[in-house]
Amino acid sequence: MKNNTRVSNAIIRRLPRYRRYLAELRNQGVKKISSNELSELIGYTASQIRQDLNTFGGFGQQGYGYSVEHLYTEINKILGLDREYKTVVVGVGHLGQAITNHILHHKFGFSIVGLFDVNPTVVGLAINGVQVQHSSELEQYVRDNDIDIGIICCGRENAQEVADTLIRGGVKGLWNFAPIDLDIPDNIAIEDVHLSESLHTLSFLISSKEQENRK
Amino acid sequence: MKNNTRVSNAIIRRLPRYRRYLAELRNQGVKKISSNELSELIGYTASQIRQDLNTFGGFGQQGYGYSVEHLYTEINKILGLDREYKTVVVGVGHLGQAITNHILHHKFGFSIVGLFDVNPTVVGLAINGVQVQHSSELEQYVRDNDIDIGIICCGRENAQEVADTLIRGGVKGLWNFAPIDLDIPDNIAIEDVHLSESLHTLSFLISSKEQENRK
Repeated sequence: MKNNTRVSNAIIRRLPRYRRYLAELRNQGVKKISSNELSELIGYTASQIRQDLNTFGGFGQQGYGYSVEHLYTEINKILGLDREYKTVVVGVGHLGQAITNHILHHKFGFSIVGLFDVNPTVVGLAINGVQVQHSSELEQYVRDNDIDIGIICCGRENAQEVADTLIRGGVKGLWNFAPIDLDIPDNIAIEDVHLSESLHTLSFLISSKEQENRK
Repeated sequence: MKNNTRVSNAIIRRLPRYRRYLAELRNQGVKKISSNELSELIGYTASQIRQDLNTFGGFGQQGYGYSVEHLYTEINKILGLDREYKTVVVGVGHLGQAITNHILHHKFGFSIVGLFDVNPTVVGLAINGVQVQHSSELEQYVRDNDIDIGIICCGRENAQEVADTLIRGGVKGLWNFAPIDLDIPDNIAIEDVHLSESLHTLSFLISSKEQENRK
């Protein structure tokens, strides 16, 4: 595997998608696949696919195509999915619970270890077998349990403080659902899911299509 | 406003972010802002910002900067947020309820009109004052109520069927949270939120940073 620290943002976005399709093919018992067949499935051009996979050293053989199992395994490695990540969720309203369910359901590579909230009506409840703790315990808990990822599902007002606490505790990455750009040090990874921005992208696309259709 | 149907995907992703910052500035009572000041806030270069906004006709005046109110209004128009969208949510588990709360809370431009599920323990319940209907009513309801957007929060297994039903009913766009690429006609807008892919992007970023830090 080549060094993957300078991979473009665009490829990073495509890799999890490759993985999703390869996981499906694998479940269906497919053993090998050509870049042309992958192209038809995923919708990227075959040359785009070959180029993407070459970035990481190339896994195909001329005239044979890719071994689904091998490519799946290698993409998992590239994505850092050949290990387990311990996560905590901060803010266990509907969104926090949805994310908790999502991770517990999909399992692969991620475990929910702790749930945190400040709401006294929620603290102490067990959700999917995990007891909700008060956020005042967060930093110590993250440190004592070597938590890798903090999942921020609280409101915008508290998100930066929660991020700071998680980072002091020693997390390596943040999955942020609060509608705010967090200020974090360079050595911490972050992935934002900004729901409003996604919805506004949709309204833009609807308006654009309406304009096209009126022509 | 220039024709916006051929705007690049990258700009489309940046516009909702501009809007978010302008909304904040507006709430803070800021009247005008330069591209340099916007750059410091948002993190894009000033020239990137000027170029993006010029795509839509440019709203700034040399030596003055941008009127926050004017720019906010114009970006809302570009994003199609100068109108109201009626939405239905299909699948009201935790994720569906989180999305429902999100839209009811933020309000701006979107209203939840109908909630649908197939689970008999959920059908008939009122969530935030909206009664959950059985999904067998979906197509007729969408048609009768001129629903603009269908929000797909059901599982992967039913997502394509739900999408087909919503489209037959007449929606213009889909906000899809199911982990599948839906097959839809060209005249329908779609925005996917693939949570697993987002999480795998995060694990990639964590692994990359760890490799950097080991050097």
